[in-house]
Parts: sequence; C-alpha cells; structure tokens
Amino acid sequence: MKVIVIGGVAAGMSAASKLKRLMPESEIVVYEKGEDLSYGACGMPYYISDVIGEESKLVARTKAQFEEKGIRVRVNTEATGVDTEKRAVTLKERPSGETYEDVYDKLIIASGAGAIRLPVEGRESKRIHVVNTLEDSRNLKKALNKPDVKDVAVIGGGFIGIEMVESIREMGLNAHLVELENQVLPGYDKDMMEHVRKSLEDHAVSLHLEEEVTAYEEKDGRIIVHTKTTSFGVDLVIEAIGVRPNTGFLKNTPVERIKNGAILVNDRNETSVRDIYAAGDCATVYHRLKSSYEAYIPLGTHANKAGRVIAEQISGSDKRFEGVIGSSVLKAFELTVAKTGLTEKECKALGIDYGSISVKAANQAGYYPGAKPVFIKLTYDTHTCNLLGAQMVGEKGVGSRINIFATAIWNRMSAEAVSDMDLAYAPPFSPVWDTVQIATNQIKCQRSDSHEK
Amino acid sequence: MKVIVIGGVAAGMSAASKLKRLMPESEIVVYEKGEDLSYGACGMPYYISDVIGEESKLVARTKAQFEEKGIRVRVNTEATGVDTEKRAVTLKERPSGETYEDVYDKLIIASGAGAIRLPVEGRESKRIHVVNTLEDSRNLKKALNKPDVKDVAVIGGGFIGIEMVESIREMGLNAHLVELENQVLPGYDKDMMEHVRKSLEDHAVSLHLEEEVTAYEEKDGRIIVHTKTTSFGVDLVIEAIGVRPNTGFLKNTPVERIKNGAILVNDRNETSVRDIYAAGDCATVYHRLKSSYEAYIPLGTHANKAGRVIAEQISGSDKRFEGVIGSSVLKAFELTVAKTGLTEKECKALGIDYGSISVKAANQAGYYPGAKPVFIKLTYDTHTCNLLGAQMVGEKGVGSRINIFATAIWNRMSAEAVSDMDLAYAPPFSPVWDTVQIATNQIKCQRSDSHEK
Repeated sequence: MKVIVIGGVAAGMSAASKLKRLMPESEIVVYEKGEDLSYGACGMPYYISDVIGEESKLVARTKAQFEEKGIRVRVNTEATGVDTEKRAVTLKERPSGETYEDVYDKLIIASGAGAIRLPVEGRESKRIHVVNTLEDSRNLKKALNKPDVKDVAVIGGGFIGIEMVESIREMGLNAHLVELENQVLPGYDKDMMEHVRKSLEDHAVSLHLEEEVTAYEEKDGRIIVHTKTTSFGVDLVIEAIGVRPNTGFLKNTPVERIKNGAILVNDRNETSVRDIYAAGDCATVYHRLKSSYEAYIPLGTHANKAGRVIAEQISGSDKRFEGVIGSSVLKAFELTVAKTGLTEKECKALGIDYGSISVKAANQAGYYPGAKPVFIKLTYDTHTCNLLGAQMVGEKGVGSRINIFATAIWNRMSAEAVSDMDLAYAPPFSPVWDTVQIATNQIKCQRSDSHEK
Repeated sequence: MKVIVIGGVAAGMSAASKLKRLMPESEIVVYEKGEDLSYGACGMPYYISDVIGEESKLVARTKAQFEEKGIRVRVNTEATGVDTEKRAVTLKERPSGETYEDVYDKLIIASGAGAIRLPVEGRESKRIHVVNTLEDSRNLKKALNKPDVKDVAVIGGGFIGIEMVESIREMGLNAHLVELENQVLPGYDKDMMEHVRKSLEDHAVSLHLEEEVTAYEEKDGRIIVHTKTTSFGVDLVIEAIGVRPNTGFLKNTPVERIKNGAILVNDRNETSVRDIYAAGDCATVYHRLKSSYEAYIPLGTHANKAGRVIAEQISGSDKRFEGVIGSSVLKAFELTVAKTGLTEKECKALGIDYGSISVKAANQAGYYPGAKPVFIKLTYDTHTCNLLGAQMVGEKGVGSRINIFATAIWNRMSAEAVSDMDLAYAPPFSPVWDTVQIATNQIKCQRSDSHEK
C-alpha cells in the first residue's frame, strides 16, 4: 500500500509514524512544503524570545530519523493539486520549480494553515512578520534582535498575539497590541479577560482595543501603523490575526470544505472522497458539546490525536476521533489563562438555556504560604445541571486544574457530581474542597427531570 | 427539632453549619471534647514548623462565630455514653468532671479519631508526642523549639510521619524515621516510594525501614528508642502510627461498628440506629472501587462532604455520599506524592485481574525550561480496560494533575478514553499529549467484551 502524506508537521508526522508502526510494510511518502519537519509550533514564541535557546529543541524528529524508520520525506515540496480519479498528487519542488505527480492508494492531507494577512495598504513591507512556521519564527527572531529594533506592534490579541507580546517584553522591547474586539483573547468571555488586560497594562503593554488597522506606512526607517483612530510608529510589526487552512490545492476536487476552506472530516477523519483523510490545521474537528463536525480549532493537540486516528483507520481498526470541547491554556506573563467547554458567549450564540457563576477561590489552602487567587467562571445547562464550560485565570494552580474541569465536562458531569468527587487534597496543593469544587458548590441547580433534587 | 453534634472539627462543624443554613429554626448543640473547633488538622505539620506562623490561621471559624449563627457550642465536653432508647447523650465537662445528659431528636456523631500509641515499655515518657489535635500540635511546637532539642525520632512513615520529618528538617533538627514496613507510605506501592525514600536520604533523614520499636527509655535527659535491631538516643519522639476512631462511648449501644471501632454508615451517613448519623474520622466511608461500605479512610475531605450529606438528609433532601476512591496527595520535601484509585497492592489483595504500567514523563513540554520528571504508575482492569488507579511522584505538576486521573477513574474511563480527551495544552504547562495521556497511551488493553477494539 502506498500512502502519500501532504504536510510534515504535527498531524502528518504523527499519522506517518503511527502508520509505519502499525503497518511496517506500507510505503509512506511525506511531502512538506517548507524546510522543517515535526516541530512544536506552540513553542515558537518561546524560541523567539530565547526562553528556549536552540531551535533544534523544538524539533521532535529529524528527516534522517524518519527515513531511518522507513518513511520517505521530501521537504520544500508543495502539493499543488490532487486528481482524485487518477489518485495522483501534483507536486512542485523548491527552488527548482520542477513539478511532477505521485500516485497513492491512500492520501493523508495535513497541509496545515497559513497566516491570514491584513488586506491593507503597505502590507508588503518587510517589517511585517507572521509567526506561522518555524521559518517565520527564525526570521522574526533575527529581526527582533537587530540593535535598532525597540518598538514592536502586535496585531491581534489571540493566543499567539498575547504570547508574542510577552516574548517582546521579555526581550526588553516596547510592545503595542492592537485588537479588533473590545477584549483580548476573544475566544474567552470579556469579564474574565479583564484580569489579562490589567496584567498587560501592568507590564507596560500599550493596548489598543476595538482598533482596526487601516494601513501600514514605511517612513524614516520605521513603520507607521495607522488605525481608525490613531497612528503610531514602530520598528517591526507582527501580524497574528488568525490562520486559514492551506487547502487551495483542492480547489478543483470534490473534497468537501467548509466556508473558511477547512476540509470537512468525520470522526474517522475521512473526507468526502474515499481513501482521502485529513487532519490538523487544514481540517475540521468534531465538537462534542456543539454536536458539530464543522468546528475549526487549529491546535497541536487535535492534530496529534487526529493523525493517529488516520493511521489506525488505514491499518484497519475503527478508532474514532472522539472530538474536542474547546480546551486551551496559555501563559500571559505571570497569569495562566485557561478554558474548557463553552464560554457564556458560546452558550448565548447556541441558544442554550444556561446559567453562569463567577467565583474567586485560591490555588491552595488559604493558610499555606504563597496562596494566590484563582478566578473561575462556569457555565452550566439549567435543565440538566451539567457543566458546560469553565474559564480560569490565576498565577498558580490553573494549568492542570483546568483539565479536571475538562475531564468532568467530557464526561458530562453535573456541578453537583463534581462537588461529590474524591479529589486529592493537601494544604500546599488545594483548599480542602478543591478549587474546582469551591466553584461547583456555588451552582444551585435543580434538575428539571428530577423531583428528588 | 433538637440536634446534638458530638465533635466540633471538620465533619461536625460542616454538618452543623450546613444544617443551620438549611433549617434555621433547628436547635443545634455541639459538644467538643477538646478546646479547639473547626480547625484544619491537615495544616498542623506546617504550623508546627512555623511555615504557617499563627495558630489562628488554621481555624476556619471560632466559637463566637458559630454562636452568632445560632449554633450552641460547648467545648471541653466529652460524650461518655449514648442511650439510644432515651435518645440521650451523657456528657462530661472538663476540668470540673461534672456529668449531665442532653436529649436529641437527631444525633450526629463526629467524634473523630485518636492517635494509636505503641504499647511498649516507656510509652508514658513526656518526651513522646503525637500530632492528633491542635492541642497536641501546640504542645509539640513548644517542645521542638526548646534549645536543647536537636534530634527527633518520628515513628511511622505514613502521611503525618513524612510531613513531620519534613517539618523537623525545616526547623534544622536531625530526624530519624522508623517504619515497620519495608517502604515509606505503605498506602502506596513500594516501587513508587523509592523516589521518596531517596529524597528522604538526600535530606539526611536517618531511615529505619522494617524496624519495630520495642521500648523507650529515658536516660541522661534524652530518650532512647530501642528497636528490634538497634537503639538510638533522641531528644524527642513523635508517634504517628495511625488513628483509632473515638467511639468507645458507644460500647453499650446497638450502633454498629467495624473491627477498628469505626461506625458503619450507609451512603446517607445513617448508622444502624434510626436518627443517629456519623461522619468523619469516627466513621466508615463507601469505597466506590471496592464496592464496600467498610472502608476506613480518615481524611478531612471526606469529613467535610459527609458532614454536609448529614445536614441535607436531616433537612429532608436525599443527598447521598457518593463515595471515595482513595485519592491523596502530600508534599515530601521537593516532591509531590499523590495517588487515586487502587494501587497494585490493593488490586492484588482484591483479586482483580489487573495490569499495570510505569512511565516516566515530564510535567511540561520537554523543551520549555524547568521541565521536571513525573513518575507515573497506573493500574487497570484487564477485562474492561478501565483505569483502576494512578500514582504520581514528581517535583512539579503532580498536585492537581492527580485529580485529572481521579476524575477519570471516578467516571470509570478506560485508558484509551483518557487518551482521547481534549485537555488544555501549552508548553509551560504540559507536553502536547498531557502527562496523564502519555501514561494512558502506554496501556495496550483489548476489551474482552469487544471485537472491534
């Protein structure tokens, strides 16, 4: 069996590696558009700020290591088309520009996503960077370390934007952050993000909320960022306004895609075309809480899991991708910001009858030295009393604790059921009712289907 | 309605407080044998070592605060008997020795547990302490701070023993630790506790494993600890060999107790006698994984939950105590030691067809600075593939992460289902497959009831 994998980062390489383990006799060829393979893209902001010194640390496995296992790898080779009848992929090599075809029995598309760029005047300036690939990060790191770079504007206050702002401040540079919405991290509820806003201000980040960039202008060796209401000059701009699936090469195929171009897959990671699978940032994921196959949440965790599912499926097992629930966490200076499940915003948009509570608790027994506040917001279904979502912000005890909520929500537990659980306790690690239970204890919910409760 | 509560610490006071909120018109009287109310007993080792400076920090609520809410509290008053026919409790006041009776409509027994003492010669020495009550801790703190105290022996390598050894070393004193078994923390598997043993040795604790104390002897202002194989002199001894339920006053009642004296309760925390409830260290708990009502696991977390169940039951709701699964965590110097569910030892004893795996993972992305190893051992049912237990030891990322396992085991998830979950990830907090999933990924289990998997 001949398997072609388009894309050599998280989803593609986990699919290829797992498949080779499961079916050692299969022929696997990976085509990667860029130069780099199998790297931890989530670590790039920390590589840029030199928190992680060497680039090689981000690389899980090298080309040589894959080839040693019997996986053929072609870098600098972009898929430019697929003929689903002929079962052939058209490929284009860099820098030669040479094109050729390769045929498959099974095709795994893991082509990732590219940075969305603002369609404004001046966008072609060399002073504007993105943080999409390891190559981008390498270039950006070099640029940020030039001695004349002092002021940096980050456009977009999502995950990458916030992480980059932290990185920039870590490097001793001045940071502007421009965000279209009236809050940072628009995937979270605004009330919870006030803690982050305050922290950014405490770290002297110039925050421009509800601001839209209208143009860039190179001037006197700087770049001027023009927004609807103001203009300011910086030495370098980082755009981090989101990504778009790299699926243009499927234009003339029957492979079904959703509006943003992401390949629609089922829970076997099958596309609409037989023997073509997709996973990672180029594909949709099943959202358990929204019961939707059309969720687009490009994260490395999903890419790794979905990649394995494809390998299992091709090898004959009926392993499924069990879905996502919107879990995420990030470091924003001293704060940890995390969520799982549905925010209040999402509950509203979905028309769910929800309740929500907000609680300030602590990460450990209040009397044990070093206790820090943890701010928690929960959403729950007012009919079933099941937890729907959790958001947490705090300096300590958030990073793993969010995953207690994730596990509870994954299992469709009610708030009361969470409070009933036997969670491990000692004063240095939690209050006697764990922080998560202090929050669930505040939910007074009477199941409509029960007279006893 | 007149409610008598015997015992004024965790279970008693949470029952009394909750009941007063639910039934403000009820008459509630709490009789507490000691002087102190509603204190966090789990914090006592840290109070003793002065990590927690003031004793008052351990106290959740004072007598005055309870009385303000309308709960009558009598301290220094011990229950010496119960007449279940007359519905009367016999009480004895300290220091007067005066006795009297009080009658109840509902009786809540939360009399706690007392330190088991070694039945050996010399046991009456004033140099031997226990860490059972706040009063004990106060006395011990005073004694440890005497200038001539340099060497301390701790007898018993359980939770309190380990925490006390750490406290003693924190205070700059020399520590001996004597344990009957061939490992510390016998509630955990021996292989996992090798990490703790090593840490104790690194902190210059003189470890005496598989040693039995045979006698104490006061000599030249010191106390000699004689064991089966050796003798050594110290200035002070702390016995921490376990506790026994304070239920002697029920001797002549039909209130059913298990072998160690713990009051047998059902999941409503009802005893075998109508209108008498029990909770906390004097009572049993339902063990979900052992399907047994006869578990004895005296922990503050269970006491608080069970206390509330009693209040709910008395007020007319059918709230149940949903059981325990053996979750615990403790700090042992720089290590966090945690478990939930069944150890290998317990699986063996229960005759379960189990498998087990041991994994060394990290608390965060390996490339992010400061990553530390986390040692994990999992047990699972070889028929259902459900996780049965998890033990973790590491310097970072263990305290809350154990509760991801606890939540998974509570929900009877299989190892595979844990690996499938959407857990929040960012490099400073976890590997891309969370530490718990790195472990569950190692379990290759084929359900015997399924042909597909």
